[in-house]
Amino acid sequence: MTFNLTGKSKKSLARTGVLKTGHGLIRTPFFMPIATRSSVKTLTAAEIKKLGGQIVLSNTYHLYLRPGLAVINQAGGLHKFMAWSGPLLTDSGGFQVFSLKDKNAGQKSLVKVSGRGVEFKSVYDGSKHLFTPKKVLEIQQVIGSDIRMVLDVCSPAKCSKVLAEHDLEITLKWAKASSKYKATGNFLLFGIVQGALYQDLRLKSVEKLCRMNFDGYAIGGLAVGESPKEMYQVLDYTVPALPKDKPRYLMGVGYPEQIVAAVKRGIDMFDCVIPTREARHGRLYVRNSKLEIQNLKFYKTVNIKSEKFKKDNSAINAVSKFLELRNYSKAYLRHLFSVGEPLALRLATLNNLEFYLDLMREIRTAIKDGKL
Amino acid sequence: MTFNLTGKSKKSLARTGVLKTGHGLIRTPFFMPIATRSSVKTLTAAEIKKLGGQIVLSNTYHLYLRPGLAVINQAGGLHKFMAWSGPLLTDSGGFQVFSLKDKNAGQKSLVKVSGRGVEFKSVYDGSKHLFTPKKVLEIQQVIGSDIRMVLDVCSPAKCSKVLAEHDLEITLKWAKASSKYKATGNFLLFGIVQGALYQDLRLKSVEKLCRMNFDGYAIGGLAVGESPKEMYQVLDYTVPALPKDKPRYLMGVGYPEQIVAAVKRGIDMFDCVIPTREARHGRLYVRNSKLEIQNLKFYKTVNIKSEKFKKDNSAINAVSKFLELRNYSKAYLRHLFSVGEPLALRLATLNNLEFYLDLMREIRTAIKDGKL
Repeated sequence: MTFNLTGKSKKSLARTGVLKTGHGLIRTPFFMPIATRSSVKTLTAAEIKKLGGQIVLSNTYHLYLRPGLAVINQAGGLHKFMAWSGPLLTDSGGFQVFSLKDKNAGQKSLVKVSGRGVEFKSVYDGSKHLFTPKKVLEIQQVIGSDIRMVLDVCSPAKCSKVLAEHDLEITLKWAKASSKYKATGNFLLFGIVQGALYQDLRLKSVEKLCRMNFDGYAIGGLAVGESPKEMYQVLDYTVPALPKDKPRYLMGVGYPEQIVAAVKRGIDMFDCVIPTREARHGRLYVRNSKLEIQNLKFYKTVNIKSEKFKKDNSAINAVSKFLELRNYSKAYLRHLFSVGEPLALRLATLNNLEFYLDLMREIRTAIKDGKL
Repeated sequence: MTFNLTGKSKKSLARTGVLKTGHGLIRTPFFMPIATRSSVKTLTAAEIKKLGGQIVLSNTYHLYLRPGLAVINQAGGLHKFMAWSGPLLTDSGGFQVFSLKDKNAGQKSLVKVSGRGVEFKSVYDGSKHLFTPKKVLEIQQVIGSDIRMVLDVCSPAKCSKVLAEHDLEITLKWAKASSKYKATGNFLLFGIVQGALYQDLRLKSVEKLCRMNFDGYAIGGLAVGESPKEMYQVLDYTVPALPKDKPRYLMGVGYPEQIVAAVKRGIDMFDCVIPTREARHGRLYVRNSKLEIQNLKFYKTVNIKSEKFKKDNSAINAVSKFLELRNYSKAYLRHLFSVGEPLALRLATLNNLEFYLDLMREIRTAIKDGKL
């Protein structure tokens, strides 16, 4: 078995497990720091390890365009290229094809979806490309990721049922095609559940995907504009329909309390840009307490650029495992942000990822201790 | 004695020594990484130490404006604010007053120099400020730097003798005023030799400054547009006129071969933005060999952004003391630059500062071994 459940909460659907990959074991539930362009912003691989990062997520769309497959292939795959010896997950690139199109209004009509695949223009140079279910798996084969995602269509959160159904049909068609291309290499291939906020579509999606027997199942099309309550509702009816013995991945989620809520609903895997993106804007995640996971008041965020930190000589995080977060003060970090010093981004990113990865470890412990 | 000479070359005027400061001993000759706004771009204090950085230079002008003296004072001085326990040198801010004025053409006329001091507008918000010899020392007292510089006027490289003489008169007047304000604290106060490229002015400057009995002597107004040959000529007649038992600081210099050339002419201290600034542009310093300091072919620079590194999987620096420079390839660093990932700047800065600080250590060894 690639996935072994090691524990199950009696209070919720939360569970702990060990996922076996070609580059080592991962304890679930886990959070994946995002290395969109093969680098977790400002940090080194050694720092990701020290943070407790077990697996990093990188981006098929971006890697395919920059540096391109020839460079990655010649380096011997992405692990070697980015000097990361642990597991890697790559998305299919589909999400970027659909989300990046809006960056340039004129390009919107240029994303052409067909049963065959999706045609799009590069955000880098406007060159035209076609992603098919087969193509994105071939790209991920060159990348050499340990967990790979199929191509899918991510419907907008509040879309009509007609559109959601249409997108789902294509997604399922592509999933079927992808399942045929599953090579015999040492990697896990995940299907992606779509269906927007429609219960019957989500359940249909689950049912059809399960017949294709993927190594794991992702839930896509969430955290795209719906309310947390709507998201939890989707999880409430979708997760129980998924096979118990396969890992479950909630894509792109989310805030700490959402992660806790999703773990309680049986999710094993997470990725999100929030900790790194908010670090760029000077928003720091701070723990209030150790064991209030239950009441969701276990953390707060602060805007370190605020005037109130101007003379705050207390440590960025006095209990951090990183010397720099213990030694540098909030006043200093505020100053670095105010004059645009690049060390600011590094310290804030380290702070937020440490928060997220410590939280995941605490979640795993809490499940084992029967507290979640 | 605050400065002890420990060795002297028989082949040149090069010398080794130990400079005692309030925050520890420094072996000369040394190079100071620049932390303009209290941060060496992208790096932590621990990394500066590991690099072999003995002392860091910070900038009175910038610190006075951002974060301002109230913040630094409340933190207990700059050492504590920037969590750097080693020695610190601060310039007087005069160089920035004169050099930054050109950034905004409309501000040029707003720098008003008088015997009293210099009036200028902040590059941050246009607010008006007056720097006097006393004021910049009071600022440095709050900063708490171990080595402090007097206010001076830095003449343009190719200025007329009339202008150079005029600037020198003010510089000497300010130096005299500064020498009176020398507090009894645990710091070293340096005078600054000016006089552009005019031998008689330089020697007059040295003579008058020496009577004021500073703790060390800086040579200013070089590396501001003159040729290396012209710079070496100034050193050839200026340095021998300086007292042997005081440290000599060549401000703002320079390229590695210029540092070697200046060491041979008896200089003990250096600072320069080159390693950090060029890192930002992807220009990496690379050693060719260990012991060719003599023929100045001991290094080269490469533009890591060049196409030729696209598939170069060799380490950024296979013999670096930093894991990240050994583990990451040139192809990876090139990619990081090409997509604007902030880790690029961090790795390049680390590479270049390691080059500079290793060079200084080799220079000290070469002097001891009679090879310089």
